[in-house]
Amino acid sequence: MVFHADNPFQEIEEATMLISRPLVEANVARILTKTERQGIRFRPHVKTHQHPEVGHWLRLMGIQAITVSSVEMAEAFHREGWMDITIAIPVNLRQLDRLDRLAAQCRLHVIVDHPATLTALERIRADIHVWIELDTGAGRTGIPVGQEADIARLWQQGQTMPGIRMEGLLWHDGQFYHATHQNIQDTWKSNLNRLAALKDRLSTVGPTPALSAGDTPSTTLLDDLSGVNEIRAGNLVYYDLMQARAGICQVEQIAVALAAPVIGHYPHRAQIAVHAGAVHLSKEQLPLDDRQPVFGRMVMLTPEGWTIPDHSAWVTHLSQEHGLIDVPPEYHRHYPIGSLIGILPVHSCLTADAMKGRNHLLI
Amino acid sequence: MVFHADNPFQEIEEATMLISRPLVEANVARILTKTERQGIRFRPHVKTHQHPEVGHWLRLMGIQAITVSSVEMAEAFHREGWMDITIAIPVNLRQLDRLDRLAAQCRLHVIVDHPATLTALERIRADIHVWIELDTGAGRTGIPVGQEADIARLWQQGQTMPGIRMEGLLWHDGQFYHATHQNIQDTWKSNLNRLAALKDRLSTVGPTPALSAGDTPSTTLLDDLSGVNEIRAGNLVYYDLMQARAGICQVEQIAVALAAPVIGHYPHRAQIAVHAGAVHLSKEQLPLDDRQPVFGRMVMLTPEGWTIPDHSAWVTHLSQEHGLIDVPPEYHRHYPIGSLIGILPVHSCLTADAMKGRNHLLI
Repeated sequence: MVFHADNPFQEIEEATMLISRPLVEANVARILTKTERQGIRFRPHVKTHQHPEVGHWLRLMGIQAITVSSVEMAEAFHREGWMDITIAIPVNLRQLDRLDRLAAQCRLHVIVDHPATLTALERIRADIHVWIELDTGAGRTGIPVGQEADIARLWQQGQTMPGIRMEGLLWHDGQFYHATHQNIQDTWKSNLNRLAALKDRLSTVGPTPALSAGDTPSTTLLDDLSGVNEIRAGNLVYYDLMQARAGICQVEQIAVALAAPVIGHYPHRAQIAVHAGAVHLSKEQLPLDDRQPVFGRMVMLTPEGWTIPDHSAWVTHLSQEHGLIDVPPEYHRHYPIGSLIGILPVHSCLTADAMKGRNHLLI
Repeated sequence: MVFHADNPFQEIEEATMLISRPLVEANVARILTKTERQGIRFRPHVKTHQHPEVGHWLRLMGIQAITVSSVEMAEAFHREGWMDITIAIPVNLRQLDRLDRLAAQCRLHVIVDHPATLTALERIRADIHVWIELDTGAGRTGIPVGQEADIARLWQQGQTMPGIRMEGLLWHDGQFYHATHQNIQDTWKSNLNRLAALKDRLSTVGPTPALSAGDTPSTTLLDDLSGVNEIRAGNLVYYDLMQARAGICQVEQIAVALAAPVIGHYPHRAQIAVHAGAVHLSKEQLPLDDRQPVFGRMVMLTPEGWTIPDHSAWVTHLSQEHGLIDVPPEYHRHYPIGSLIGILPVHSCLTADAMKGRNHLLI
């Protein structure tokens, strides 16, 4: 184990999000190879990073379409030149005017799961691309996939509305975040069989719907993604401790770490304090095996980025601005007060959102 | 129970933090009456709100000194005209230049709990006010209160440093957030007895230290706060569901609510979806009695603000931008898609931080 007493990031004054371009590119390239071979559009969800420069890296890799989770995020990425954007949350009817303006300027996709929402889209004058959201088991938003008559009625309703382009069926298998590889494979296949039948049914009342899936576990783990037209996963651009814990990625693939200043030494309880708290990492937690929640895992900063120590050291306490890391005794010597420690996030999307408007370093 | 079908907040398009000035003022006035009677300075922690206008309300109530949790927050409030600021987190040695600039412009207080940190303050040229942080049981930062020799050495070390004004001893009883009223009272008293002895000891190697305490539970619950010179509590300006659950406040005293647009109806599982997620409320959770975590409690918006329904409806699922509220069946009729629902936060400080740079409405 090599400690670096020299500070590799001299310029860092306060909690700073380090983003590794080589790791981001490796994570994305692995998926692109798979989706391109199978003729599937990869439309990554940029809520994970919300970073114009990371978006630029994706564009340089050939990605032309993105997914976002709010009108504000769509507007921000449109300003960065993105022209094909899906807002993957049921339409907020209080933002129709903004949607209308945006739809006039780019190819805008929205999702609906209720006839009242689709009806309200009449007020949009620009062409807008509409997907019906299905609930394939996650139990968040979307029409339960078994309610075929409701889905068909909505598909048919959209066909008659001027300016509305009914594109297809879209879902997010959030339940896969807590499933085994085998279970993900089985559910994916049975979902696609079910959706093939649904596609046939909808084709009798309109054009054949496209299919859009979007979750990091299935996108990462399954070799065969055929049957869908696009994939909207986003977390895989960074990955995080949650995904590593679930066996979706290796800890070494996590592409972001928070650099945090050491502000306290508490050898009597084998802890180091950093000025990094819930406002930097988010309060997302992961239970350790003994059920104690943790909020991040320590890494050692190096001139090239960071390395994973053999001994796992966890952030075990997190208040608004303080973090406490349980460390072996010798770490107090290696990490004096004023030095920097790296922390891998539990949930990179929420850490990235918390760090918006704070410090970033692209490495 | 009165539902308001008319939307009292027509202008709201997306998740918006409502801040009730009457409730803030009532919460603060209750404490000020107590501290002023006992000759204690109330130096509220503004990390709870981080809002210039709320700070202005506090100033109009006679408050002249504040507590913050970062140099950035100190700089922001100094720009708003605050001239007496305590940064209540151990000094981050990577920010000494910024501290120096700030200390030259206002009465700046910092805290230390390690000789290396105090020694490093030599680099600050402006006068700076220093408090020794003690750990009286919270186990976060601070020197354990029993390590009297270490505390005395630090107190003595500061006396000889030019520009350093050793002010006193400061602590935060974070453990009170999970304690009973009786336990808080007993611990407070035994702490003060212990600290009185420590004060005497320190007086032999320097001036008599002042005492600064700071937590919402003791500040709210204890009638007799005598013995300390200042109180730094902050959460009590807003309170939240955590404090209400702990018996520190009534739900009716919570001074902030998030107004969130309804985007989905799921009557088959008695749920309503709102466009409000972890990026708005934070991921802070509270276990319900049956251990299910909840992320907020629904309130009904009214022309004057909000009212608490008799039936408790909770946010039971929270992802990045989606929230799901478990509701009685009739709520689907009363809260159509496109209407607004109010949500009381679990932890108002983290919600306020998450909402920084997003929408606020002062009511």
